[in-house]
Amino acid sequence: MTIFTRIIKGEIPSYKVAEDDRYYAFLDINPIKKGHTLVIPKLPEPEADYIFDLEDELLGGMMVFAKKVAAGIKAATGCKRVGVAVLGMEVNHVHIHLIPLDSERDMLFTNPKLQLPASEMAEIANSIAQAIDPV
Amino acid sequence: MTIFTRIIKGEIPSYKVAEDDRYYAFLDINPIKKGHTLVIPKLPEPEADYIFDLEDELLGGMMVFAKKVAAGIKAATGCKRVGVAVLGMEVNHVHIHLIPLDSERDMLFTNPKLQLPASEMAEIANSIAQAIDPV
Repeated sequence: MTIFTRIIKGEIPSYKVAEDDRYYAFLDINPIKKGHTLVIPKLPEPEADYIFDLEDELLGGMMVFAKKVAAGIKAATGCKRVGVAVLGMEVNHVHIHLIPLDSERDMLFTNPKLQLPASEMAEIANSIAQAIDPV
Repeated sequence: MTIFTRIIKGEIPSYKVAEDDRYYAFLDINPIKKGHTLVIPKLPEPEADYIFDLEDELLGGMMVFAKKVAAGIKAATGCKRVGVAVLGMEVNHVHIHLIPLDSERDMLFTNPKLQLPASEMAEIANSIAQAIDPV
């Protein structure tokens, strides 16, 4: 079982921002920008780890779910855009990075990871969650 | 009219790899990796320039189209994965970058742009197009 499935099950805590029957969104614990969020599908074991191995319906729906989450991130952070990145080599469970962008350089994965206090992470997650239309 | 709409219309040449009634895929003219491809939707003017402004159906379908293109890129280039990036600040028309990855660093937009001869670009486009299942 992947760490992401354990997060979905609540066995590992996360700063959740949204969830529906097929997807789950939560703050990246090593954000490169405040509000950096991961969107993951709920998957059977063994979990798919390459986004383009998802079947069409689940893949397309994931972007539609990400759109709602992105609207919340934009409203909560005041960023210009929300960027999308799928690298997929770090954790063996499909995930999309949603990153608040004020400039393209905000998307560089070589940028230093932020170390934010838990209270601030909780506050960011809450403000994004509040800003998301009910899914 | 955006430069991408002009490419779709054939007014500006491109190294096309796939097309259907709603989407068009072609090689990025300034690739950061051989096989770096852009997927764009066919849009009315004024063209949307932020991916999450697309309506759900067109947005979800774009990822499903990208999946087919990515399979062709993977087969043609032999990369491990095809990464996905949406930055959306360079050209004012929605587009998804599909980038052949052998390591995560291949997705850094600060990597030097490759200057490939036109003959090689044509050959890459052709090999990807040949490897894509009919859309």
